[in-house]
Amino acid sequence: GFGKVDYAREKRTGYPEVIFGLGKTPDQVLAIFARLYEKHGRVMVTRAERETAERVQGDFPEAEYDPMSKLLTIGRTERRFAGTVAVLSAGTADLPVSEEAARTAEWMGNPVERIYDVGVAGIDRLLAHRERLQEASVVIVVAGMEGALASVVGGLVRRPVIAVPTSVGYGAHFAGLTPLLGMLTSCASGVTVVNIDNGFGAGYAASIIQQAILEG
Amino acid sequence: GFGKVDYAREKRTGYPEVIFGLGKTPDQVLAIFARLYEKHGRVMVTRAERETAERVQGDFPEAEYDPMSKLLTIGRTERRFAGTVAVLSAGTADLPVSEEAARTAEWMGNPVERIYDVGVAGIDRLLAHRERLQEASVVIVVAGMEGALASVVGGLVRRPVIAVPTSVGYGAHFAGLTPLLGMLTSCASGVTVVNIDNGFGAGYAASIIQQAILEG
Amino acid sequence: GFGKVDYAREKRTGYPEVIFGLGKTPDQVLAIFARLYEKHGRVMVTRAERETAERVQGDFPEAEYDPMSKLLTIGRTERRFAGTVAVLSAGTADLPVSEEAARTAEWMGNPVERIYDVGVAGIDRLLAHRERLQEASVVIVVAGMEGALASVVGGLVRRPVIAVPTSVGYGAHFAGLTPLLGMLTSCASGVTVVNIDNGFGAGYAASIIQQAILEG
Amino acid sequence: GFGKVDYAREKRTGYPEVIFGLGKTPDQVLAIFARLYEKHGRVMVTRAERETAERVQGDFPEAEYDPMSKLLTIGRTERRFAGTVAVLSAGTADLPVSEEAARTAEWMGNPVERIYDVGVAGIDRLLAHRERLQEASVVIVVAGMEGALASVVGGLVRRPVIAVPTSVGYGAHFAGLTPLLGMLTSCASGVTVVNIDNGFGAGYAASIIQQAILEG
Amino acid sequence: GFGKVDYAREKRTGYPEVIFGLGKTPDQVLAIFARLYEKHGRVMVTRAERETAERVQGDFPEAEYDPMSKLLTIGRTERRFAGTVAVLSAGTADLPVSEEAARTAEWMGNPVERIYDVGVAGIDRLLAHRERLQEASVVIVVAGMEGALASVVGGLVRRPVIAVPTSVGYGAHFAGLTPLLGMLTSCASGVTVVNIDNGFGAGYAASIIQQAILEG
Amino acid sequence: GFGKVDYAREKRTGYPEVIFGLGKTPDQVLAIFARLYEKHGRVMVTRAERETAERVQGDFPEAEYDPMSKLLTIGRTERRFAGTVAVLSAGTADLPVSEEAARTAEWMGNPVERIYDVGVAGIDRLLAHRERLQEASVVIVVAGMEGALASVVGGLVRRPVIAVPTSVGYGAHFAGLTPLLGMLTSCASGVTVVNIDNGFGAGYAASIIQQAILEG
Amino acid sequence: GFGKVDYAREKRTGYPEVIFGLGKTPDQVLAIFARLYEKHGRVMVTRAERETAERVQGDFPEAEYDPMSKLLTIGRTERRFAGTVAVLSAGTADLPVSEEAARTAEWMGNPVERIYDVGVAGIDRLLAHRERLQEASVVIVVAGMEGALASVVGGLVRRPVIAVPTSVGYGAHFAGLTPLLGMLTSCASGVTVVNIDNGFGAGYAASIIQQAILEG
Amino acid sequence: GFGKVDYAREKRTGYPEVIFGLGKTPDQVLAIFARLYEKHGRVMVTRAERETAERVQGDFPEAEYDPMSKLLTIGRTERRFAGTVAVLSAGTADLPVSEEAARTAEWMGNPVERIYDVGVAGIDRLLAHRERLQEASVVIVVAGMEGALASVVGGLVRRPVIAVPTSVGYGAHFAGLTPLLGMLTSCASGVTVVNIDNGFGAGYAASIIQQAILEG
Ligand SMILES: Nc1ncnc2c1ncn2[C@@H]1O[C@H](COP(=O)(O)O)[C@@H](O)[C@H]1O
Ligand SMILES: Nc1ncnc2c1ncn2[C@@H]1O[C@H](COP(=O)(O)O)[C@@H](O)[C@H]1O
Ligand SMILES: Nc1ncnc2c1ncn2[C@@H]1O[C@H](COP(=O)(O)O)[C@@H](O)[C@H]1O
Ligand SMILES: Nc1ncnc2c1ncn2[C@@H]1O[C@H](COP(=O)(O)O)[C@@H](O)[C@H]1O
Ligand SMILES: [Mg+2]
Ligand SMILES: [Mg+2]
Ligand SMILES: [Mg+2]
Ligand SMILES: [Mg+2]
Ligand SMILES: [Mg+2]
Ligand SMILES: [Mg+2]
Ligand SMILES: [Mg+2]
Ligand SMILES: [Mg+2]
Repeated sequence: GFGKVDYAREKRTGYPEVIFGLGKTPDQVLAIFARLYEKHGRVMVTRAERETAERVQGDFPEAEYDPMSKLLTIGRTERRFAGTVAVLSAGTADLPVSEEAARTAEWMGNPVERIYDVGVAGIDRLLAHRERLQEASVVIVVAGMEGALASVVGGLVRRPVIAVPTSVGYGAHFAGLTPLLGMLTSCASGVTVVNIDNGFGAGYAASIIQQAILEG
Repeated sequence: GFGKVDYAREKRTGYPEVIFGLGKTPDQVLAIFARLYEKHGRVMVTRAERETAERVQGDFPEAEYDPMSKLLTIGRTERRFAGTVAVLSAGTADLPVSEEAARTAEWMGNPVERIYDVGVAGIDRLLAHRERLQEASVVIVVAGMEGALASVVGGLVRRPVIAVPTSVGYGAHFAGLTPLLGMLTSCASGVTVVNIDNGFGAGYAASIIQQAILEG
Repeated sequence: GFGKVDYAREKRTGYPEVIFGLGKTPDQVLAIFARLYEKHGRVMVTRAERETAERVQGDFPEAEYDPMSKLLTIGRTERRFAGTVAVLSAGTADLPVSEEAARTAEWMGNPVERIYDVGVAGIDRLLAHRERLQEASVVIVVAGMEGALASVVGGLVRRPVIAVPTSVGYGAHFAGLTPLLGMLTSCASGVTVVNIDNGFGAGYAASIIQQAILEG
Repeated sequence: GFGKVDYAREKRTGYPEVIFGLGKTPDQVLAIFARLYEKHGRVMVTRAERETAERVQGDFPEAEYDPMSKLLTIGRTERRFAGTVAVLSAGTADLPVSEEAARTAEWMGNPVERIYDVGVAGIDRLLAHRERLQEASVVIVVAGMEGALASVVGGLVRRPVIAVPTSVGYGAHFAGLTPLLGMLTSCASGVTVVNIDNGFGAGYAASIIQQAILEG
Repeated sequence: GFGKVDYAREKRTGYPEVIFGLGKTPDQVLAIFARLYEKHGRVMVTRAERETAERVQGDFPEAEYDPMSKLLTIGRTERRFAGTVAVLSAGTADLPVSEEAARTAEWMGNPVERIYDVGVAGIDRLLAHRERLQEASVVIVVAGMEGALASVVGGLVRRPVIAVPTSVGYGAHFAGLTPLLGMLTSCASGVTVVNIDNGFGAGYAASIIQQAILEG
Repeated sequence: GFGKVDYAREKRTGYPEVIFGLGKTPDQVLAIFARLYEKHGRVMVTRAERETAERVQGDFPEAEYDPMSKLLTIGRTERRFAGTVAVLSAGTADLPVSEEAARTAEWMGNPVERIYDVGVAGIDRLLAHRERLQEASVVIVVAGMEGALASVVGGLVRRPVIAVPTSVGYGAHFAGLTPLLGMLTSCASGVTVVNIDNGFGAGYAASIIQQAILEG
Repeated sequence: GFGKVDYAREKRTGYPEVIFGLGKTPDQVLAIFARLYEKHGRVMVTRAERETAERVQGDFPEAEYDPMSKLLTIGRTERRFAGTVAVLSAGTADLPVSEEAARTAEWMGNPVERIYDVGVAGIDRLLAHRERLQEASVVIVVAGMEGALASVVGGLVRRPVIAVPTSVGYGAHFAGLTPLLGMLTSCASGVTVVNIDNGFGAGYAASIIQQAILEG
Repeated sequence: GFGKVDYAREKRTGYPEVIFGLGKTPDQVLAIFARLYEKHGRVMVTRAERETAERVQGDFPEAEYDPMSKLLTIGRTERRFAGTVAVLSAGTADLPVSEEAARTAEWMGNPVERIYDVGVAGIDRLLAHRERLQEASVVIVVAGMEGALASVVGGLVRRPVIAVPTSVGYGAHFAGLTPLLGMLTSCASGVTVVNIDNGFGAGYAASIIQQAILEG
């Protein structure tokens, strides 16, 4: 019918296909979910609305739904990475995206360290966490407004920094365009960037790096 | 002829009209320069090309030209403000705009403190100047790339912070649009912003604040 | 948990942290509100929805909520500045933003003079207030549509002018982008600009200038 | 060959086709020029570079070239309108576009009144010309920067106001986009707008209005 | 209180102030309406929602409301122009804006000729009205999609053409930006443009031209 | 009244006018529908909401409505093309647009081959259909996100490829702008593009090509 | 080395790879040219500068260079399509792009009919060619400014219309963005669009359609 | 003077500061170069013009300059990573950026595998390298036009993919904005992105990942 599940993705990339919940009906999500579950024994849906979650939980009662991050999951990899993924956020309103990143990373096998609400307007808050930051294997920086946190963090660590701009802001913020552009033109070298509000993508990229570390 | 000099501006605003050199022929600049000089005994031209400067210096040998900031001046106010204006820059390439701000402020009567090349990728460089920063009456922050410096500084001081985005950058920087938007959506409260590369406007705004401080 | 209150901000900047209400749940706002109140004895929340206000007023009955400006406040600084902050608006629809600016300034210790509905399509209305304008210590100009008011005012006074573009308009107005760009490229020298609809930021910046005047 | 001259345009619209010089080789311009001259006895080329002008003047020595407005003309209508077209400009750098408007209007039969350098940063300069303004049949406002002049003028007169944004400015001005948007969202009713730097279009539109007045 | 009615506008421009309904509460509109009615005996409100209309009609039962154009009016000028204003529209969905233009023009004293649904995809429909078009004193062209109708009409008539882009379209139409830009860069000379969906502005500009024709 | 049906369109282009449902009231759609049905015996409405469909089905019970594609149709051409139109989609969320393309093509006489959910993140899924692809007469590629599918397909076939960007995506996707731009700058030669979400336009263009093939 | 020629493209698509000259050094073009010539016996380079052309002609004296279209070619397919490709242009300045389209089509085996300078400001010029237009197998419309020609033509023919926006224009034209958007949102059904100034792409797409007609 | 070298960067991040050559005078670059060389014994300058290179080589004859990538280097780390960095490019014109990435990676201690000119219009070229791709530790994808290569590669490997959009393209490409947006909205999970033409940033990010792999 409507969907061709990419069963071979796990073999190619190390992780099964993840269902992108946006724009799919609950029935469509359920159908793909069932097929992925049969094949892999674990499934994640991103951007799942409550209605979708309930439709899936009707058939899969053990599926878990987190309304803040809108992640719907069942099962989990058995692999467990040694190093941690640090997830930093600039403000409280960045929580949903931060949690999408953190929980994606956890689902994919990462110990996660959350360091939230350390935006640069009070720089000492961030500097107080300098050491915890430097111990992480990968750092994810989630920030809305002007996104300056990514640049400051990028200059403090010797590990990969993945920046996630968020749509938190208004006016000249243009729903996340401003921190996106700011992170892309960061004065800190080597910061890489994912799409606005794409906590999932950041968590996934961190896990791929961890996979590289693990597999050498 | 082509120009109506706004002689009353000094009376209304405290400062005589400044000549915007862009898009004017050397002859046009000279003509306006002469009339302003006659009236006020001091003149400043911004964005003056060397050719214009030389044309003016032909008639006004005491006029001074600074090729980095492209400011051409003659005379200077006798008023001298008590407090300093601090001009910070993120990188070396921001020098022309920083100097436009600093020299405009000086010409308008401000002692100026330059703190250059303290971009946030090496945050400790900035923090080393925390005290000098806090002593200034007004702070101007000049930054290209993502412009994050304005947000960090905005959270450190109890004085007005004027942010100047610069066109230093490439790609998703869009000739200064990115730091402009970033500064406007800064997570630090009360930062105000001027146009891209408008060092002059920042120096002018700082002087107007100093005038308010002086005149109470 | 989710938030790290920046208790040291008052010491650094002269004013305690203000809560940005957008994107926070009523419970999150309440939690931060309580902590800030405990520390400082006064709190301001911007962009507070009625639901949030009621949640907070449940615990803090003396908190005041203004539905037009969406400000929720408790307490107030004891400091009182000598000079006034003039808040001008171009049209009636700019009222919510104008009031956000005016009430922020009042909460931070400023006497405020409101001069509303003096858009430039009937320039004599503005000119009738020329003297009141010239007596203010700081001038805030709030305007939607094309934002021309800021330029006219900028040329009339010897005090700092802070321009606030609003999202009032339609079509080629792009939700405030047009007056924002217009204010940034104003032909009046030294006008500084804050984000679209950021009445709070303007009120805050005005107060910082007043603090500079007061503290010299 | 390459061009189909629209000989019938004069009959349909009252004015012969005008040659748009941009992107045409001197030889192409000359060929079209010759055909139009033969048919109408008068021709105008806009945006003509000096090289093109000289190529045409080689064959048509009586053709006149104005390097500031880049208009190249020969002949002129015999019709002479009773009322004047006022052309206002905000600053000296708007001269080339202002002259393109003024000379187009003159070529099409209008007496023209030039009121230049009356930008709103010194509003009294404009108000000093209030009466001359009110006597014009049509008003053209040429302005770069934020283009605020159009709104102020639009509220002062009972005649059509045609606004021409110019590319004079920098940074957030985006080569004229800012005054264009500002003029389109003007708070003055009934201002109409032409393309950035399109002095020709404004002069033409003014002449079409004059034609309507004349022909009733 | 909140609004300063511009009573002198009629004297300056020939028409009283019109109330812009967007972003005003019904009570605010009513208050301004009452004051304008007292002064001028006729009032128009644009972009009035039904709720506002009913609030006003409560106090002014003779006020008329047209839900398609969202115009709320009372009274009308006694002046009656001789020539007609033709209002053309490209498609059926452009009706609300077309009617805003047509009814504004009628309210201001113009006989109006409506020629609707003559978009260029079936060019013969337009050409069938060539003569009626050529008889109008002023032509208003209302079009969404790509807005091509303005260019075709601009080349057919010897009278002023005012183009109104509409927000009718989707995707790369960007809520009217596309026809706006298209009309501004029209290959027909002398077309002038108003803001997206600004039928009011077009009707007003047409009336100002008619006033110029009438008053010579 | 409000609409001028373009009855001659079938004669000029081979297909009767199609009703664009967006922005029309149910009554307007019904009125045009009735006139077109009388003339051509078959009608299609695009972007029809359920309410409109029901209003039309009240008078025309044999009209069929597909809620996914929002197409409302009655009758159908008798002509049947020999070759097939292949409709490819990148993801499940592109279904509504894909179905709009597919059903438009069917209604216009094309056999349609649907190849859905073959996005490039699992390129082998697409390559598995290489032969079916190469047998089609025309290929329509429907894709949101970055729209890369169009480029890959464009390099695989010797038949026209029509690309349809969709609004499926978020953040830097800008409601379809990103795949639109990507398809326009495709590295595969000769791919042509229609508007965002314009499945109808793609189905129509495919049918016009089929008509050219049939009529030689 | 630096380039992997796609030798199999002719087999897959019917046409060999074409060299995109932009951003390649003359030596790089020559190297790829030689390899393609050896394989296919015919080569086309687009956007070839004169220097590149001369470098290639040094080794391949029979290569032909057209400076207007910047096409450099050698050899030609033996296949000759029956129907013609009509290439329309709106203005004289669109010639380079029109010729790129026309000559690409000729090189790929199409008889080409050029109908130039028929922009819609003088619609009768276009209508005079209505019959020639209707006889073509494929129609390419090349237009700058607002690009309205595509919509008018799209409603006149029963054959595929490929629209090419050009960068001819200024100001709100944004180097071709305006006609691009206009063509994408055309009110004529089934017009498809290629990139700004991409005459090559249009000629190629036309040839692919001709190939479909020929091969059935 | 003008620059504060960030000597501590190597300690914090593992790599010394790199000089950004854009917007610095040759003398400024030389001065910073000398200080960094003294401290670290190795230096890299990006975007160095030939004049700058020669100025530096005057004092440091052993400095090497690569005109294609515009990298100027002296010395090199002794550390050598085990795994390779694969650098893919879509077309020949992407070479300068690809080489900036490749040479930065080499300078930072990575074995580099170049796989150039494998754009998706001939997908088999890429698939022929599938195995080499899968053996790399980190993959950098450099692509202009629509940037589709990143998505295809992202779905093929189990290692981090860093995408670099380039300014190679024209028209709707907007100097790299199009592939930038496309890469950010890629349908392949976990692709991260750097600024347009920022080959340096990609090489640096790859090295930081390698450092993480090496240091565990
Ligand atoms: N939140 C997300 N943002 C971006 N891509 C996602 C997201 N969730 C899932 N994906 C990717 O989207 C693709 C699935 O698309 P679909 O076939 O429409 O479900 C997979 O390749 C996922 O890795
Ligand atoms: N629909 C409209 N679009 C643009 N301007 C309008 C509109 N309706 C009224 N106006 C103008 O808006 C101004 C009134 O603004 P306000 O004081 O906010 O009512 C007057 O100058 C009117 O001429
Ligand atoms: N002017 C052009 N515009 C767009 N694509 C082109 C152009 N000329 C050649 N191409 C395509 O660009 C690709 C060659 O790219 P390259 O490997 O960089 O030479 C081929 O697929 C051509 O079909
Ligand atoms: N090509 C480049 N693109 C982006 N950032 C760079 C580039 N080259 C050097 N940098 C960074 O720019 C900063 C130096 O800026 P500056 O102080 O102006 O020399 C350092 O943090 C470098 O890591
Ligand atoms: Mg916080
Ligand atoms: Mg530096
Ligand atoms: Mg008002
Ligand atoms: Mg002046
Ligand atoms: Mg219709
Ligand atoms: Mg899928
Ligand atoms: Mg012509
Ligand atoms: Mg190639």
